[in-house]
Amino acid sequence: MAANQKFKIGLAQMACAKDPEVNLRRALNFIERAARSGARIVCLPELFASRYFCQREDVRVFDLAEPIPGPTTRALGRAAHRAKAVIVAPIFERRAAGVYHNSAVVIDASGKIAGLYRKMHIPDDPGYYEKFYFTPGDLGFHAFPTRAGRIAPLICWDQWYPEAARLAALDGADAIFYPTAIGWHPSEKERYGARQLDAWRTVQRGHAIANGVYVAAVNRVGLEKADAESAGIEFWGSSFVADPQGAVIAEASSDREEILFAEVDFGRLETVRRHWPFLRDRRIDAYSGIEQRFLEPNPKVKKAQ
Amino acid sequence: MAANQKFKIGLAQMACAKDPEVNLRRALNFIERAARSGARIVCLPELFASRYFCQREDVRVFDLAEPIPGPTTRALGRAAHRAKAVIVAPIFERRAAGVYHNSAVVIDASGKIAGLYRKMHIPDDPGYYEKFYFTPGDLGFHAFPTRAGRIAPLICWDQWYPEAARLAALDGADAIFYPTAIGWHPSEKERYGARQLDAWRTVQRGHAIANGVYVAAVNRVGLEKADAESAGIEFWGSSFVADPQGAVIAEASSDREEILFAEVDFGRLETVRRHWPFLRDRRIDAYSGIEQRFLEPNPKVKKAQ
Repeated sequence: MAANQKFKIGLAQMACAKDPEVNLRRALNFIERAARSGARIVCLPELFASRYFCQREDVRVFDLAEPIPGPTTRALGRAAHRAKAVIVAPIFERRAAGVYHNSAVVIDASGKIAGLYRKMHIPDDPGYYEKFYFTPGDLGFHAFPTRAGRIAPLICWDQWYPEAARLAALDGADAIFYPTAIGWHPSEKERYGARQLDAWRTVQRGHAIANGVYVAAVNRVGLEKADAESAGIEFWGSSFVADPQGAVIAEASSDREEILFAEVDFGRLETVRRHWPFLRDRRIDAYSGIEQRFLEPNPKVKKAQ
Repeated sequence: MAANQKFKIGLAQMACAKDPEVNLRRALNFIERAARSGARIVCLPELFASRYFCQREDVRVFDLAEPIPGPTTRALGRAAHRAKAVIVAPIFERRAAGVYHNSAVVIDASGKIAGLYRKMHIPDDPGYYEKFYFTPGDLGFHAFPTRAGRIAPLICWDQWYPEAARLAALDGADAIFYPTAIGWHPSEKERYGARQLDAWRTVQRGHAIANGVYVAAVNRVGLEKADAESAGIEFWGSSFVADPQGAVIAEASSDREEILFAEVDFGRLETVRRHWPFLRDRRIDAYSGIEQRFLEPNPKVKKAQ
């Protein structure tokens, strides 16, 4: 096993078209090219099969959802088998009438589904009306064993939650993959853009450090408008890979389609965690408040005098 | 209240001498100077009253411990009252024979102790033999109300634990203060120094972002040797303040004593959290694994096919 722990991964930083067939065809092409260049894990951006439709609320969009397994996971399964690569692929999942999830499957290099993740943290912000579309996930946070290590898929908004990364790491993740769709509101970009991008990168690097895992964020690029009048969202790309000490070892452009390659070595988790033994000293007896919304002031513990 | 939420804080980045009386006198001077320049909160570095004695294990060191309240907290209380400033002050606490804590008190501007924190996460690394000296804290993670906002003291190694910062934030913290004693092993500095310092800064900026709070880290400076043969630890200073979006708004040198001032505005927490509403979407129904050491693979949830 140890000999196989050092290999290349490929993040497909795509622009997404309106037509799902076009997106799938292009994704398959990205996967094939990435694998041909040696990538043993390939990750696609969040909801890669469509435009980022959450810019407005429209019930017709649910037509885009499909079951898992379904046509897309089958096509990706064949691609994984052909390419001998693990694929992390976001799917707009139709689970039942009225129950739709923002999901991601991990497909092993055999072509079989190794695990399913349903986005747990659902945002709702101007232009990101995800609570309308996505039922919150009910499968928890997990790392799935594959031929290329234990892979934990999390999705976009999960990036801001230390709990999600921690649970993935405690489940044995070697790497956390975050398929993403995040961008600038054009009116905010000049004033707040750099700060937003920096915070996004920093909080995820923090997860890598605190947990001693690789972190890979895979974003889309391009300006997408809900309609002709809309200012749209300029997806900021900047896909990156951080090593288990939080160092950025590969980073993509903010505006171009590309495959971002990075060399990972899952054997390094052992070394890093021996030197930075954070997991050893966790105070699991004292974290119970984490499962509460907010902690009311308790005058008794405030007065130590 | 709102009018008072914008003010200056001062971090006393000190070098620490052998003699506790000298350190206390110098700390009082730092506090007085900081307050004279307008600081309404002043924070001292971890174990400011002594050299960083954890470089070796020596039972005689317990002589340095003192009760809370005790001579040091009384002197600091008088200083707080005089300076009309809140003080965050680390104390090597003697609680009972054989029960010593690495603690920090928050002293209100009235001079009274507003809260006591006992370091929860205790490291043990070559040169940082803290498990020998410090009984793990049993008071949990709290934010204490003061005349200058709700202040959560955490200490050094806690910096690497997202749970600690989260619990402080859920307890209503406006700012987390991390008195610290961290530095380079001289033999490692050239090769690993930049990476270590960057990870330390990044993980704490991540806490500011994830929780929408101010974070202030207060380190000591100077080379301290356990004995003539020892290479010692070069404490790297670099005290800093991050705003609730993780931006570093003030940062000290790596090698000089100084008071680092920063302008904070606790009213910004409201604005930042409205725009970045991470606390709204926490999945408190799904975090139960956080209270476990490690999660055994569960084959049932891995097979979603």
